[in-house]
Formats: sequence, structure tokens, C-alpha cells
Amino acid sequence: MPTIKYYLREGLLPAGVLTSPNQAHYDDEHLRRLRLVRALVDVGGLSIAAVREVLAAIDTRDDSLHNKLGAVQEAISQPGSGELDPLAVKDVQAFFERQGERDCVDVTESNVTHMLAAALSAARSVGHDHFHDLLDPYLEGLKIIARADVEYIARRGSSDDVIEGMVVGTLIGDAVIKAVRRLAHAQVSRDVIGNGSDD
Amino acid sequence: MPTIKYYLREGLLPAGVLTSPNQAHYDDEHLRRLRLVRALVDVGGLSIAAVREVLAAIDTRDDSLHNKLGAVQEAISQPGSGELDPLAVKDVQAFFERQGERDCVDVTESNVTHMLAAALSAARSVGHDHFHDLLDPYLEGLKIIARADVEYIARRGSSDDVIEGMVVGTLIGDAVIKAVRRLAHAQVSRDVIGNGSDD
Repeated sequence: MPTIKYYLREGLLPAGVLTSPNQAHYDDEHLRRLRLVRALVDVGGLSIAAVREVLAAIDTRDDSLHNKLGAVQEAISQPGSGELDPLAVKDVQAFFERQGERDCVDVTESNVTHMLAAALSAARSVGHDHFHDLLDPYLEGLKIIARADVEYIARRGSSDDVIEGMVVGTLIGDAVIKAVRRLAHAQVSRDVIGNGSDD
Repeated sequence: MPTIKYYLREGLLPAGVLTSPNQAHYDDEHLRRLRLVRALVDVGGLSIAAVREVLAAIDTRDDSLHNKLGAVQEAISQPGSGELDPLAVKDVQAFFERQGERDCVDVTESNVTHMLAAALSAARSVGHDHFHDLLDPYLEGLKIIARADVEYIARRGSSDDVIEGMVVGTLIGDAVIKAVRRLAHAQVSRDVIGNGSDD
């Protein structure tokens, strides 16, 4: 497979053990790392340079799996480039304060909080000034989803497999959630707005 | 504003009442329609032709608001162009059967079910054959979210404003949910995987 040779050349996969001049042996560890690199490139759309950074974060010995997951999550969560509305930034900070976390001084320090502030800025730019009212019910629903996500990946054996599961689960999960949310809209709209009346 | 003139010329806004040779009066109805067209173009990224189709669906007299919302939702939910895995299609059909809905014979009939089958196909293509196990907990969490979404838009007065709210709420909501899900991951991962151990 040419991609494996490419990943080897780029230093993203450790070299196998040579069993003959033109054959190398790769063990399970290699396969796990290959799956992870593929997930980062094919599903995450990361550049080779970004993959190298992610792998360096993962291979740091003196860090917990929780912190490694956080570092990878940042790498796969790129915020848009739009201007942030200062009021939307305040919305995010107020949300964090309601969660009992008071350390969100600069929302652009994390890609994830930056992404949230960017989305609320987009809402405000089209006159939806109270979109932040949805944050608390969103978090309530997303805790159920996040628990299922974390259980899905925690079953996996190795640290590389847990992280690969998080990359795939986070990014493909975004698309699945988009679709299932629309199905849930249809169900709830039938109950709340009803099928028979107009305006 | 040049965009208003453009929308008028394209027939997306009804003409105002002329109050002098070069001034027209626009009422609240016009403003609501303008907000809706802007949401479809600026937030939804729809082409002018697609906006025209959406408006035609909305202006159909003999249809319920619920059905109109469904038509607009389809217009703003474009599935990707990837191949569908027949096993992923079966996953979607089994999910519908579990919901007691047996009429999902062809998933490509609706953009939303097509989007779901495409996402599960992507998961299978990277070896995640059990991603569909997440559908039930996802729906559970998304029902809470969808209820908040529908309440958010149902407060609005006119049919155009409800639909505008659904377009903005659905699309900007997708981005907000992406970010809040990652925050929930961090919270849950701290509880389940813990902060101190490696592998």
C-alpha cells in the first residue's frame, strides 16, 4: 500500500522489523497507529504537519489520557475565521459561569470555545440575540450524547484506539447528530406545532 | 439597500406600495419576508433558485405549517455525494423500525435520511461497524434539544418568522451543538476516563 510507505517516510509510523531485505514485519501496535493516522487524515482532514503534532501530543509520556484526548480534540476542532461579537463572547462567559467554571477569560484560547463564540456571533449578526438561551437545554441533551460517546470509545483497548475512536466518533458523530436532530425536529414539531393548522 | 432591489427584481420579495414615483412603502409582512430570504441566502447558503422553491412551498395555501417546515428542512439539508454502504442503509431502516416507523423503504427519498445513511457509511468505511449503536442515545439527547428548538421558534408570531427561526436555528444550531458537544466530552471524559491515569 503506497500510503503506508508515505506515512513511514513522513515519520508518522515507526519502521517495521525487517524480516528480509524487502519485507518488514508490522505488529498490532503499528496497525493501531495506522488506523489512527488514517482517521486523522481521512476523517479529520488534518494536514501531515498537524498529524505529526497530534502524534507528538499523544506520545508525551507524562500526560493523562484525558489530557491527550483534550489535545486531539483541539486539533480536530478548527473555528471559523469570522469576527467575534463581544456580546456573544459575554454569552459564552456567562454560560461557563453558570456551569461553575470561572476560568474562561479568553474564549479564543481554546478552539472549542472560539467555535461556540463564533456560532453565537453568527446568530447575533442575523438578529437572533437570544440564541444563547438554548445553551443550557443543549448541554442537557449533549451530556446524554457525550456519555454514550465516551462509553463507545472507553471500551477500546489501547490508548491509540481510544484516541482513534474519539476522532472518528467526534467528526462522524457531528454528521450523524445533524441528521438525527432533524428527525427529532420533525417528531417534536408534529407534537408541538401540529399537523393540521396554518399560522 | 441594493440587495433588496436585487431580491425584488428576482421576485423573492413582493413589490411595495408606491408612495411617490421613487419611494415605495414596505410593511411588516415585507420585513418578515426579507429576514427569511436573508436567512436562506446568508445562513443557509441557498441559491436564488432554491430560495424561490422554498418560498413557493411556504406560500402554498393548502398546507400545514408542520409540512411547510418539513419542506424547508429538506431544502437546507443537502446530503454529501459519497457512496452509500448497503449495511449502513440497513442500519437506518432498523433505527426507523425501532421508532415504530416502518415506511423508510428508500433512504434517499429524504435528504435527512440520506444524510444519516451517508454518515453511517463513512463510519463503516473506516472500520466502525457499530456506530449505529449510538443512534438510540443520540435520539434521546436530541429530543431534549429539538424540544428547546421548537419552543424557540414557536414563540414567533408569523409563519414567515417561524420558518426563518427554523432555518437560523437549524443551521447555526448545528455549529453551537458541535462546540457544546466537545465541552460535554471534556466534562464526561474527566468523570469516566479520569484525569490521572495513562492507558
